[in-house]
Amino acid sequence: MNKELPVAAVDLGGTKILSALITTGGRVLARHLQPTNASKGKDAVLQSIAEGIEKMLAENGLKASQICAVSVAAAGAIDSEKGLVTDSPNLPGWHNVPLRQILAERFGVPAFVVNDASAAALAEHRLGAGRSLKNLIYLTVSTGIGGGIVADGRLYLGSDGSAAELGHMTIEESAGRDNCGNYGCLEMLASGSAIAAEAKKRLKEGRASSLAAMDLDDIDAADVAQAAAGGDELSQQVIARAAHYLGLGLVNIVNIFNPDVIVIGGGVSRIGEPLLEPARRLVAERAFKLPAGRVRILEAELGDDAGVLGAALYAREY
Amino acid sequence: MNKELPVAAVDLGGTKILSALITTGGRVLARHLQPTNASKGKDAVLQSIAEGIEKMLAENGLKASQICAVSVAAAGAIDSEKGLVTDSPNLPGWHNVPLRQILAERFGVPAFVVNDASAAALAEHRLGAGRSLKNLIYLTVSTGIGGGIVADGRLYLGSDGSAAELGHMTIEESAGRDNCGNYGCLEMLASGSAIAAEAKKRLKEGRASSLAAMDLDDIDAADVAQAAAGGDELSQQVIARAAHYLGLGLVNIVNIFNPDVIVIGGGVSRIGEPLLEPARRLVAERAFKLPAGRVRILEAELGDDAGVLGAALYAREY
Repeated sequence: MNKELPVAAVDLGGTKILSALITTGGRVLARHLQPTNASKGKDAVLQSIAEGIEKMLAENGLKASQICAVSVAAAGAIDSEKGLVTDSPNLPGWHNVPLRQILAERFGVPAFVVNDASAAALAEHRLGAGRSLKNLIYLTVSTGIGGGIVADGRLYLGSDGSAAELGHMTIEESAGRDNCGNYGCLEMLASGSAIAAEAKKRLKEGRASSLAAMDLDDIDAADVAQAAAGGDELSQQVIARAAHYLGLGLVNIVNIFNPDVIVIGGGVSRIGEPLLEPARRLVAERAFKLPAGRVRILEAELGDDAGVLGAALYAREY
Repeated sequence: MNKELPVAAVDLGGTKILSALITTGGRVLARHLQPTNASKGKDAVLQSIAEGIEKMLAENGLKASQICAVSVAAAGAIDSEKGLVTDSPNLPGWHNVPLRQILAERFGVPAFVVNDASAAALAEHRLGAGRSLKNLIYLTVSTGIGGGIVADGRLYLGSDGSAAELGHMTIEESAGRDNCGNYGCLEMLASGSAIAAEAKKRLKEGRASSLAAMDLDDIDAADVAQAAAGGDELSQQVIARAAHYLGLGLVNIVNIFNPDVIVIGGGVSRIGEPLLEPARRLVAERAFKLPAGRVRILEAELGDDAGVLGAALYAREY
């Protein structure tokens, strides 16, 4: 594999597919964004991925022989060793899809598949908020919560490539069953879905709130955050609750990994300090002193490019 | 450092100090066991450690110049980078003790300090239950619960050497405050202390049990396990409760690390299947399928030598 050539990297999400051409130095030469249309089924999505890459290559006057690899960051349980998407919550009908093999055959270059949050962890470590540090944990807080681990400078993926499911650690078993089958997961208590669900629950109880003017079905985490910023007490309490549980997750991460930095990305992280400040305080109060004194808890720097940048780094390094 | 020479390895526990001379191949040439007498204070214990090593060397006709290193595995928050025992729950008065420097000066050879559970993880990976596997998590279940992480074949210690405090992850926040300052820790729900405390609590409530014949203060986890094995219902319920919480911890470990193996050591692990079988079942029910299908949950193989063997490996490898 000629590593001087760009990587065609893809961030395969439940709603959007972002393709990008990425140089050795991590520069984005071109981007191509398209809808996933996940409901059209697996084969249609696979076709879209390939066509997106082909279109991007054509627009930039490149042939497949002028890229060194195709690399996909995807949500879900990814078996990076075998190149399979074993399961993906936002891609109905995807079970043990041999994505690596399909893309390698179509483009005639080596192909890679890696979990999207692990890819983002690698990108934030090499190019973003964790540059030059030894140990980084990445947490993406959006609809769900995903994670990535950089340990002693190397991406840690576990024995199948499915490690770092930090959103699915139990922090309060008695909170009940999560969609994943586990109980009291961080994701069901601190994610965007959790924020929206808790706000709706409190509104249904008849509590006063500026959100009461909205259609209940339309309320999402961003609405709650906005109402909280505007002084709405119910919304502030809901955000504070999520921040508390996020803090519990961070305490666990600090005690388990003793990392230099925890980088928080994902849409919900844009709430910023109202979410991060109480979580940082909980770490200071509850985690062991030595690792709590070490860790910095920072917002991610790479935004929507983290997935494609990480996928490209993964192809070059692994 | 001449790695052909043996390492003088020490397992510094709250009640006993085990010293051993260990060859390159991990063979134990000699052992020396002595009480810690922790209550006599830091300086007395430091003196005991050094004298124990000196006695062992003398008994084997060796001078300090005929060992390649002194390496200590110790309980507590160890800053392996700086060679400090920053805090140790079973060693009163120990705060930021520069153990590495003290031993290096006394013996004139390189010295090392590493957390005892991390040392045991390394030993079980190289010489015990996890031989030739990529990713191993070690959990010692005794009075407390400690952990060690071998990731992609290398011991992972975090940025200060204090990683892998797996006993201090929150799994049920509402269970209340742990001694460590965190809430609902695995250790306060599944350790030997937890088993004894829960049995005493139920006995105080007047529940019938074969343990009722004992002095309440004398009851420990081994007594509860023995009564459970003899058919005592209260004791069986207490063991089942600990096994359930141990299982929650294992689910988290499986989702976070996707390891090949989780090795369980420590005195309480000798309860064996009544503790491990329900915990394994919970992993199968609640963890993600891919990592749950991969992981094996095994009893440790190296027994009381795990700490000194790991300390010796640490000195040779790091």
